[in-house]
Amino acid sequence: MSSSRIPQCENSSRLSLSSIFRYFGTTSTIATMSPKKVTIIGSGNWGSAIARIVGSTTKSFPDEFDPTVRMWVFEEIVNGEKLSEVINNRHENIKYLPGKVLPNNVVAVTDLVESCEGSNVLVFVVPHQFVKGICEKLVGKIPADTQAISLIKGISFDKTNQGVSTEKRGGLKLISEEIKEILKIEVSVLMGANLAPEVANDNFCEATIGCKRKAEDGPLLKKLFHTDNFRINVVEDAHTVELCGALKNVVACAAGFTDGLGYGDNTKAAVIRLGLMETTKFVEHYYPGSNLQTFFESCGIADLITTCYGGRNRKVCEAFVKTGKSMAEVEKELLNGQSAQGPLTAEEVYLMMHKTGLDAKFPLFTAVHKICAGEMKPAELVDCLRNHPEHM
Amino acid sequence: MSSSRIPQCENSSRLSLSSIFRYFGTTSTIATMSPKKVTIIGSGNWGSAIARIVGSTTKSFPDEFDPTVRMWVFEEIVNGEKLSEVINNRHENIKYLPGKVLPNNVVAVTDLVESCEGSNVLVFVVPHQFVKGICEKLVGKIPADTQAISLIKGISFDKTNQGVSTEKRGGLKLISEEIKEILKIEVSVLMGANLAPEVANDNFCEATIGCKRKAEDGPLLKKLFHTDNFRINVVEDAHTVELCGALKNVVACAAGFTDGLGYGDNTKAAVIRLGLMETTKFVEHYYPGSNLQTFFESCGIADLITTCYGGRNRKVCEAFVKTGKSMAEVEKELLNGQSAQGPLTAEEVYLMMHKTGLDAKFPLFTAVHKICAGEMKPAELVDCLRNHPEHM
Repeated sequence: MSSSRIPQCENSSRLSLSSIFRYFGTTSTIATMSPKKVTIIGSGNWGSAIARIVGSTTKSFPDEFDPTVRMWVFEEIVNGEKLSEVINNRHENIKYLPGKVLPNNVVAVTDLVESCEGSNVLVFVVPHQFVKGICEKLVGKIPADTQAISLIKGISFDKTNQGVSTEKRGGLKLISEEIKEILKIEVSVLMGANLAPEVANDNFCEATIGCKRKAEDGPLLKKLFHTDNFRINVVEDAHTVELCGALKNVVACAAGFTDGLGYGDNTKAAVIRLGLMETTKFVEHYYPGSNLQTFFESCGIADLITTCYGGRNRKVCEAFVKTGKSMAEVEKELLNGQSAQGPLTAEEVYLMMHKTGLDAKFPLFTAVHKICAGEMKPAELVDCLRNHPEHM
Repeated sequence: MSSSRIPQCENSSRLSLSSIFRYFGTTSTIATMSPKKVTIIGSGNWGSAIARIVGSTTKSFPDEFDPTVRMWVFEEIVNGEKLSEVINNRHENIKYLPGKVLPNNVVAVTDLVESCEGSNVLVFVVPHQFVKGICEKLVGKIPADTQAISLIKGISFDKTNQGVSTEKRGGLKLISEEIKEILKIEVSVLMGANLAPEVANDNFCEATIGCKRKAEDGPLLKKLFHTDNFRINVVEDAHTVELCGALKNVVACAAGFTDGLGYGDNTKAAVIRLGLMETTKFVEHYYPGSNLQTFFESCGIADLITTCYGGRNRKVCEAFVKTGKSMAEVEKELLNGQSAQGPLTAEEVYLMMHKTGLDAKFPLFTAVHKICAGEMKPAELVDCLRNHPEHM
């Protein structure tokens, strides 16, 4: 699980750094190439929290990274001011991360194509539904060797079933696959136990980068995100990392239902465990060859725990049970205009499982969708779990 | 992970049941042998909760189990009455599980040897420190083919270092090994996300039985504990099951420290994950050949989650940080005379790691001991984790 480490010589010029490497009889592809330009596509709560990290690391490693980090901002007027101008003048995202300073090398750019021009690393951190439109606008506008890293949690259900690979998987498509398909570039992912407000608060936490070309791209990506309080592990098993990030929200719904029903810690732990087991089975079914070890990374159990105790899906689903209101109503009341990903992902997962006749093997995922859709009572959740395949 | 299933013919006599098996061309060692006598050694909170389950299952399977379950009770006078008499007359353990009915086939016996006479299955559920004395009293007093199952969470550090096996392990000895060594019988273990009050309340939960002779003993033991609301998986990897049960209390101390320090969900999840990673490394070091899958059972992640959110070790360690009082003081104030296992286990683990020069590889376990012992400030915990071997 350990990742490669790059020698760190922060104050050396590129010339002297490569001399040092030659002296020690080694070369570094990072050190001898020109500094990478980084763009953050997105400026919401999580995007702004990650901008604080990326702004800092790019300044710390001038040999590897261009010190200017562009952040694409969807322009909004906030209290009579343009959000992009507030970010560039006062270094604060007053709408989505108020009270936290953004590094002054993070520059808001409102034109998407301009923000990505000549960029070597694109950090995708926008709501799921905007990915396709954004990528289509960038076709032909970025260098051919650009790489992307997605911080977006969710999956697509491709109803048109185009392409052999998604057909095999009942229509399942990962966000990283969607980006790769349109832009024809390598796409890694970053997932972990990372509630955005706590990351913005510099609380110690961990995250996992899933990177198929770990040896080539892993060291650079680790350097871009790894700080004293944001500890990165890099693994090759990128599909698993990404699916953990999507499916945990479904499990968190189940955890929220048990909280709403007042079932206590034992039941909640059983529900979380059975949800994790279904996640492992789901990954293994749709992406055979996943590594069990990956579920022990931050993207796996740690993110699952955080999400099932502190996340918004849990909160909404608890309220759904306690108030008897519709999911849409409780979302509106509790999430301040944001939506909960869990019920959406549960529906997509259900559709693809149903299509491939697998719903009976995933009783927890199936129950979450049916409860969210009003087709099953929350109190019936445990009945579905009593004869779980795990207990047979 | 699935366990064998035994055909269930609750209302058949032994004769007709064996006829049925012959008819279908199969035999069952369970069905053709005489019903097993079961004794529960212990009558505390957890022992009484488990007595409700065992009392029920033994009645449900008269072909497999003798319907009388003896429970060894350490006699106490409670409100002027003998505890054993209250249990036998009113079917309630008014001291350790008030308000819950014990099945009327659970019979309190105050003489240890008498309670185990002729018993085929001994369920050990007493505080760790009484195990040795109890076993020594039973030597020569139980049938040679008796088997035991331990529900006790903890480990021993054998300071005398007798025996090659414990010497190899820096003095580490499991409770199951201690029982086996003295009584020369097979010892399985049962661990899981099982806070006793919730089990007594019949809330849905899961547990794991670790049973080295899974094929021979697993089906009977599963039948003894498996109910609609207490779901059992049986695995062969018994050492891992038992060590998970002991080490989770150390991790829960670390989780309690982060709660006391107000670090939030991300940090707590990272601490729990790093604690789990140290647990896997510890098991692999001292008992090579453990199965990673076992950590996904209830005894692994599920129990860890429950303990780190709802358990007493977490609670005590949170208060230790918040109040600045000694561990002994907060235990006295919060645990109503009971003690927290975590600090004790942390010390034992530290001693054996230190002896084998391994403490640097287990920074979380080491920090927990040092904080409990007053040798390190709680706020230094995260500093110990920043350069965790997992991040290298």
